[in-house]
This record gives sequence, structure tokens and C-alpha cells, in this order.
Amino acid sequence: MTHESNKKVLVIGAVAGGASMAARLRRLDEDANIILFEKGPDPSFANCGMPYYIGGEIEDRSKLSVHTPKSLKDMLNVDVRVLSEIIKIDGDAQVVTVKEVATGSEYTETYTELVFSVGAKPFLPPIPGIDRPGNLSLRNLEDMDKIVNWMSLGKQDAVKTAVVAGGGFIGVEMAEQLRVKGLQVTLVEALPQLMAPLDPEMASMVQHQLESNGVEVILNSPISAFEPKADENARGSQVVLNDGRRMDADVVILGLGVRPDTDLAKAAGLKLSPRGAIVVDEQMRTNVKNIWAVGDAVEVRNPITGGEWLVALAGPANRQGRLCADNICGKAKAYKGTFGSSAVRVFGVTAAGTGMNERGLKMAGIPYACVHLHPTSHASYYPGSCMIALKILFQSEGSDVGKLLGAQAVGADGADKAVDSLATALQAGMNVHDLADLELCYAPPVGSAKSPINLAGMIAQDVLDGLVSIVQWTDLSKLAEDPDVHLLDVRKPGEVAQKPLHAKAQNIPVQELRARVDEIPRDKRIVTFCASGKRGYFAARILMQRGFARVDNLDGALATIHASPLMKSK
Amino acid sequence: MTHESNKKVLVIGAVAGGASMAARLRRLDEDANIILFEKGPDPSFANCGMPYYIGGEIEDRSKLSVHTPKSLKDMLNVDVRVLSEIIKIDGDAQVVTVKEVATGSEYTETYTELVFSVGAKPFLPPIPGIDRPGNLSLRNLEDMDKIVNWMSLGKQDAVKTAVVAGGGFIGVEMAEQLRVKGLQVTLVEALPQLMAPLDPEMASMVQHQLESNGVEVILNSPISAFEPKADENARGSQVVLNDGRRMDADVVILGLGVRPDTDLAKAAGLKLSPRGAIVVDEQMRTNVKNIWAVGDAVEVRNPITGGEWLVALAGPANRQGRLCADNICGKAKAYKGTFGSSAVRVFGVTAAGTGMNERGLKMAGIPYACVHLHPTSHASYYPGSCMIALKILFQSEGSDVGKLLGAQAVGADGADKAVDSLATALQAGMNVHDLADLELCYAPPVGSAKSPINLAGMIAQDVLDGLVSIVQWTDLSKLAEDPDVHLLDVRKPGEVAQKPLHAKAQNIPVQELRARVDEIPRDKRIVTFCASGKRGYFAARILMQRGFARVDNLDGALATIHASPLMKSK
Repeated sequence: MTHESNKKVLVIGAVAGGASMAARLRRLDEDANIILFEKGPDPSFANCGMPYYIGGEIEDRSKLSVHTPKSLKDMLNVDVRVLSEIIKIDGDAQVVTVKEVATGSEYTETYTELVFSVGAKPFLPPIPGIDRPGNLSLRNLEDMDKIVNWMSLGKQDAVKTAVVAGGGFIGVEMAEQLRVKGLQVTLVEALPQLMAPLDPEMASMVQHQLESNGVEVILNSPISAFEPKADENARGSQVVLNDGRRMDADVVILGLGVRPDTDLAKAAGLKLSPRGAIVVDEQMRTNVKNIWAVGDAVEVRNPITGGEWLVALAGPANRQGRLCADNICGKAKAYKGTFGSSAVRVFGVTAAGTGMNERGLKMAGIPYACVHLHPTSHASYYPGSCMIALKILFQSEGSDVGKLLGAQAVGADGADKAVDSLATALQAGMNVHDLADLELCYAPPVGSAKSPINLAGMIAQDVLDGLVSIVQWTDLSKLAEDPDVHLLDVRKPGEVAQKPLHAKAQNIPVQELRARVDEIPRDKRIVTFCASGKRGYFAARILMQRGFARVDNLDGALATIHASPLMKSK
Repeated sequence: MTHESNKKVLVIGAVAGGASMAARLRRLDEDANIILFEKGPDPSFANCGMPYYIGGEIEDRSKLSVHTPKSLKDMLNVDVRVLSEIIKIDGDAQVVTVKEVATGSEYTETYTELVFSVGAKPFLPPIPGIDRPGNLSLRNLEDMDKIVNWMSLGKQDAVKTAVVAGGGFIGVEMAEQLRVKGLQVTLVEALPQLMAPLDPEMASMVQHQLESNGVEVILNSPISAFEPKADENARGSQVVLNDGRRMDADVVILGLGVRPDTDLAKAAGLKLSPRGAIVVDEQMRTNVKNIWAVGDAVEVRNPITGGEWLVALAGPANRQGRLCADNICGKAKAYKGTFGSSAVRVFGVTAAGTGMNERGLKMAGIPYACVHLHPTSHASYYPGSCMIALKILFQSEGSDVGKLLGAQAVGADGADKAVDSLATALQAGMNVHDLADLELCYAPPVGSAKSPINLAGMIAQDVLDGLVSIVQWTDLSKLAEDPDVHLLDVRKPGEVAQKPLHAKAQNIPVQELRARVDEIPRDKRIVTFCASGKRGYFAARILMQRGFARVDNLDGALATIHASPLMKSK
């Protein structure tokens, strides 16, 4: 039988969520009339790839155009209208007014369903001079071309210096790519750390990676103004920090975060959240009849806290688009929320995370503990393994004690792999005991018999079982000053000489500990530490069983301390 | 308070499970008397690394010795006795008799707990001449040294030709490594495929990878004899296949599988399974009081079928060892079974799998379906991405319909990463809908907005929802011969010309399908196909909605067909 459809579905915004919605809808309903409106000239472009075109890693610009209007028409029979802005929506009459950007002419279009996939726009705070020429943000291919043109690389007026404002995903990626292009790059961040989704000691490794590749990173420094350079005719700006420091930049990349692009939604009567995002139900339905919304402009549920949050990520946008199409076709599928799994690659090192970080857990009032470890990416005896800095966060009290709450990893190999499995575990509701039991793939070139995730689970188990008590890198300064605390370094003397942690620390290698236990004061709280946490744990177990009243192991030990902001401030 | 222990724990076998057991036990009980017996000269060596030492990728032999008796004594205060064979066990009196291999002298040792970590030994079937000089298997470092010595590389009598008997993990790894060393290598397998844990079309890619790197692979060929070469004084053997073929080999590697090493266990009265493995309860306890067993010698539960199976893998052995120590110390932890997650790396390509394959599901009588897909390892527009061949198997009927049952992947990058996440999902009891929803880490250099796992879940969802019906590569020959079946190739004509699938197939590119739908016969069953399965799916959806009565898409399409044994036999 031939299928007949009465659907006329208009989609506002043709990237990620909108394009996924249209593609899925066509597969479900061959006869629906689907029109995709895009304000700009490009539908369905690969926005996450733009920094790499600017940096030259992607050489062919056309690779960023996942689809053209013609290919979408041919493949999906979707009517794509670029340079077409929706300027008015009458939700009662189910009619939109479309403005053709090129001519300014307007027309109306009725709908049976309307889908907002409007995304988020760069946040431009009211800093004096923020709109100066050469202050450029990156939302779409037009922005990308503007940056490339402004840079004039290979020409006489090529830019030499760049300031990247903001140390989030786009800021870090752009800093990397501009540096790859040979620019002198300074990354300026108002907060005390880069990459807000990561905890500070993990973000600090991203910072180190940027710095060791020649990017200057300035933290704790809001920008107070963009002013002309001393030579007023020179291209670019002088960037003024709140402490008065000034630096010249031939180009400024504004990566100060994004905000839901919801002026039109507001005008159409869509309910917005306090943060200005579109409020939708589990099926991506807004409060206005037959209007749906997906992607970076909608508020989503955080399945861990049960609250709502805003997450601008391509994966969730794509899945919401698909799910929205299912629901338009009556399949009644629920979006279960966004866990915030993400990754960034910085000069050959990947930082990845999923779920909650410490700040988020504190804000949500969820009792948690965390462990740090530094396993190798594959069997250490097989060539080419490298260290992964891995952190997991888990519930420390209550009926869900041990439940995984989040994970972060940084490494040249295996960090994204580990976090992908941990993201799966998180979404499955696994706890640290499940992680200890997890059976992952092993061959010496691709893994370890005890995988990094097994080890993380085992350490967390030991903490929860009271087999070991740990202190964190943030506790170290206070502990070192406490006269009742005795620091015990259980590394070999050669290691201590090479990388001392604290002058106060006593050194007894763990191998000699049983024989020399009487050299350790019994009236003090002992804090054991080593290079990565393992030998310190062995030592703590020995001392705990030899009657020492209070023993703590420094979690993650020197590998975490040395990566942390603690050492950077020294 | 000081802890006092009455435990005296003897461990038979000091690799993987035994070493893990001892290390964990020491952390739990500082005062236990722990004695580790090892028949050979090396405790705690990295047996999985041995092929790579033979192949020269691992240059330093000492890297394979994870621990020496001294380092185990220093770190864990464990008494390691190498070259010490347990020859008798009196389970009632709790006494073992130890024979010192070097001197032949014997002594007894009492125990409160005895742990079998005896492993598995190479299976040597009764083939005439199997014990000829130069027929070498690989279980321990002594075997490894024997192989290296026999090969005499760099010397006048260096081996030039090798036959590897058996295409399992060791066989494939050894074939790769001997080829790396410049030998002419032939891999002979009795079964119709290599790598039994993989399904044939996936194993076929491993075979292709070996062949394209110069290893000759002979399937379906049991070896009937090893005979002297024509020149009876020449080193090595002539290998005779059951079809009469003969080939000379200067060295023969016997990789014909392993069997639990349980003669001692049997003599001690331990209950053995029909396959000769030690039967243990969930806590790794045997039927004899205070005797425990872990590792490759024990039968484990298969959590998917609920049955028992034998799995010789390092990861489970290590975790069983740890868990056994917990239980000896009264923690009452249960081993939940082994899922069989494994990986093998072959000339830069990794094949990985977890859970059940088709053969296993058929044997267990579990109704299943599977989907094949060929996503890229990361965003295809970012340089360096490569194709992953991915297959998932899931329940097709019953109350657990959609439940993940297994997964396999082959690729130069990302195969082990994908299977690790799928192994996690499998162990969490996830279904294909969960996979479609899964939120993994994405940045263009390390992933895709829709990850390979999302895509696998989405395709499986569509199959279960009846949105598309699929046929498999195994159905193709029959379908092509069926006069009531119409094959429809929806690729572009240029692609068809380059890689035709079948002369009978009609070619209409999916982009033209809507306009040319009348060219397709309505009285036949239509089977759509393309390069990887995606466009065929689009085409199937169009035709299904245009009133075609029966439409199937060829799952995995040409990418699966071309990798399959189907094409190899042509």
C-alpha cells in the first residue's frame, strides 16, 4: 500500500540536530513535506571541524560541507532553503514568516510541525571594544572564512600574534591550531583553570600540554577591554587584562562560551528556562502545540543530579534530532538526558570526561569520593605505552554508595578509550565494584590484563571497604604544615633525589619498610606517598596492620601533584 | 593493634592468577605465611608478551619478568620457590609434597589454604611425529628461549621457513611475529576459519591481513603427520596435510589450543568438569576443603548462556586471583563469570570481540539477530580516519528482545575501543536501544558525533522495529539464484563498474530511486545493497513506503561481502 502523509514539517536550522531530524523523518515518512530553513549559506556543515580547517589539518574546505542543498534533495527529498531566516511564528495559526536574506523579501509557510534546531551563539560579554575588527568568534563557515581571511597567512600582512579569549573547547582547539600555524598565541582565561568540565588537576595537564608546545596560558585574568594598538592603524587590538597587563594581538579569537540562540523562540511564546534555553519535555516537545526543539538551544535533564543543565555537544544534538522525528511520527520515545561526555585533543594528547566533576557534585550536594591513578595505555612491557592520568568520581555515602558519578582522563593514547567505557558504565548505573570486575579486551599492544578501568574500580573498592584511607592533592599543603602529620616517602632514594616532594618527608623505600618500621613515629598521623600511588598503598597496608593508628595514602601521589595547579604556583 | 594470622597459604603456579592472589592476600593479611611454588624457573612472567620477544618487538628479555623471587620477597614478603613442583597433595591432612626439580629431593609443607593456579598446557593431539625436534609450543619462558635458540637467526643455520599449526591467538600472533622476522610463514588451520571466537566474516579479515603481509594461510586442513624432510639431516620437518599436501618447515610452532593442566588436581581429588577443568564455586573454592583454584585451569560460568565454559585469558585469571584472596580472608565475594572479551593485533590491525558469536548462540539455542556496519574510527572529514568493521549480536525474540549478546570489530584504529565500550554495555545488560542512546566522547580527531556504537544500536533498533528487514552475507548466494528475487544495487554507476557484486543486479543510484521507481519489478522480492549498507537502507525505506511487498537490505553490504569467506572462495 502506498503511504500518504499530511505532515508538513518545517525545521529551523540545518546543522546537527535539524539535519538528523530531517533525515530520520524522511526514512519514517516518505511523503512528508520537509523544509529545512537555514539563515546562513550552508546546511549541515561539520562545525566541530572548523578549527582544523583554520589550522590547515583539514585542507579541503568542501569536506566540512557534509551535505549541500542538492545532496539533501537527492538523498532525502528534503527542501533545503538556505539564506532563509524565520522572522515570525504564529503558533496558533501554525504559520511562519520567512525572510530571504539576499533580497529581503518575505513569504509565509504553514506547518503541521515546527522544529527548532537553532543552536547556540557565541557569548559576547559587554567588554569595551569587544566588537573591534579582528575580534572574531567561530560559529559557522562564514565565521571560519572571516578568520582565515583576516589571518592573511602567506601574505605580507599575515598575522603573527593571537590572543584566544576563553579556555573552553573552542578556545583550546583554536589555540592549538593557531600555534600549529606558527602564530605566537596567548590563551587568556578568567577562571583559575582551563576546560571547566574537567577538575583543576586534570585541566592543568591540558594547560601543560599547551605551554610545552609554546602557547602562553594566562589564568585568573578577565579581559577588561580591547583597545587600539599603540599604532592605531595597525591591524588587531591591544588586549587589556583586569590587572592592567596589556598585550598586542593581530587577531583575537573570542571563545567565551555560548548561549542558546532563543530570541525567535521567545518571540514565538516558547517557554524558556532561567538560563534562556528552550524548555522541552522528554519527547523534545515545547510548550507550544506542534512546536519541537532539539540541540544546543534546549535545556536537558542531568540524569545524575536529576536537575536541568545546558550542554552544547554534537552527539546529544544528533540523537535529539533523531528522537524528535520518531516522536513526530508517533513513536513516543523519551530522551533520557545528557551526561556531558566530551573530549578535546591538544597537541597529540587527548583529555576526555564524562558525568560530573567535583564542582558539580558539590553544587548538587552529592557526597562523593574520587581516586586518581596513572596506568599505562597498554602492557608496559610492550613498546610504545604511555601514561594515562585517570580519575573517577563515585558516591561515598548513602544507598547508592560506590555508584560511578564521573570520570576524566588525559593521555597521548587510551584516554578517550577509557572514558568511553566509563561513560558506558556511568549510563548503565554501574558502581566501582562493577568496574573492578569489568572484562575488557586485552592483547599486549592494545591493553593490559588489568585494564585502567579495573584498577580504578579496585582502588575505589579499597577506599570504600576501609582497606586504605586516602588524602587528596588539595590536602597536601595543610598536611605538610601540620606538626602532627608525618610524611613518609616510600620511593627509592634515587627517585626522591630526582623529584623531591617535601623536605620534611622521611624516606623509607617500601621494600625496606617491614624491616625499618620502628623508625617511623607511632604518635603521629602517617601520610604515605610514592610516584603514582601504588607503593604508597602497599606501605599504608603494612603500617595499618602493624598497629599505626592513622595512616593515609596520598591519592595519585606525585604524578597527580606534579600535574596539579599546586606545583604550577610554586 | 598488631594483627596476628594463622594462615599458611600455598599457591601452586606463580603466573597471572597465582601472583595476583599472593599480592592481594598480602595486602589483606600482613602476617599470613604465603609460599608461591613454581615448577619452572620464572615466577610472574608476562606470558602474553612472549611472541613479541621472539619477533623482536620486545628487545629486553627481562621486561617479561614482571617479578623476580627477590622483588616479590621485598615488596610482598612472599616466599617464592621456583623449580619446585608439587607432586602430591593430602587434602585431609592438608599437606603437600614438594619436589625440588634441580636436585630431585622432596619435602612436605602443611597449609591452611591451598590455591591452584596451574594454568593450561598446549594441546598436542596424537599426530604422528608431533614430538619431532623443532616442533615447538609456547607456554613459558623456557619454551620461548627454545624457539629463539632453534631459530638461530643471524647464524649460518638460521631458519627460513615456518609452519604455524593452529590459527588461534598464539598461532596468529606467532605467524605475524615470525613473518616480521623475515621467515616464510605458512599458517595451517583445520577449521574453515581462523580465530574461532570471531564469526567467519570477521575472522576472514584477520586472514586477509595476514595474507596481504605475506603469510600463507591454509584453512580446512588438519595436519596428518610431521615427517623428516627429504634430506633427513636437515633441521625441521615436512608437514603433511590431510589432503596429501606437503611442505617443509625449518621450525613448526604448535598452537593447537590449550587444555587445563589438571593431572595434579585430579590426583588430589578435585572435581573436574567433562572437559577436564577444575570445578569451583562462585568464590573459587573447589570441592576439597581449603583448596581453591583460579585461572585457565578452572571452568567458569558464561553469564550469557548460563552454562559453563573454558576461557584461557589473562584478565579473568588476574581478577579470579584477587577475588580468591578476598574470599580466603572471609570477604565472600562472588565471581560473576567470564564474557570472553579478547583482542589480537595483526600487522597494525586489531580484531576484538566480546560475548557470544553466532556459533555459540546457535549452540545455546538463543534466538539472535546481528547487524554489520563499517563506520570510521573518527570523523571522516578529519585526516587519518579508517574503517572499522563492526558487528553486534542481539536477542531477536522473547522478553529480553534487543539485549546485547556479543560484539566483534576489526580495524586499524578504534576496534578495541569500540569493543571495550560494547563489552561494558554487555556486562551491564544493555540492549540495542541503550546503545543507540549511548553518549560517548567526541572530538573530530578521536570520535564521531554518532559513534560506531550509536550507529550499531540505531540499525539494530530499526531491524527490531520492523523499519527495515535485512538479509545476511550468508544468504547472498541463494538469493542471487532465486528467480523471485530482484537484486537492486543503489550505488553510483562508477562504484558498480569498479566493484560489481552480481551481474544480475539492477543499478539505480539511491539518489535517482524516487524518480525511477517504476523501473523496478513489483512482483518480486527486492534485495537492496550498496557499499556499506546505509544507502541500501535508505532505498529499502523508500521502496517499502512505495508499496513494494517485500524488501530486504543486504546487511553490511559489499564491505562485509568482500571481507567474507564468500569472496575468498571465488
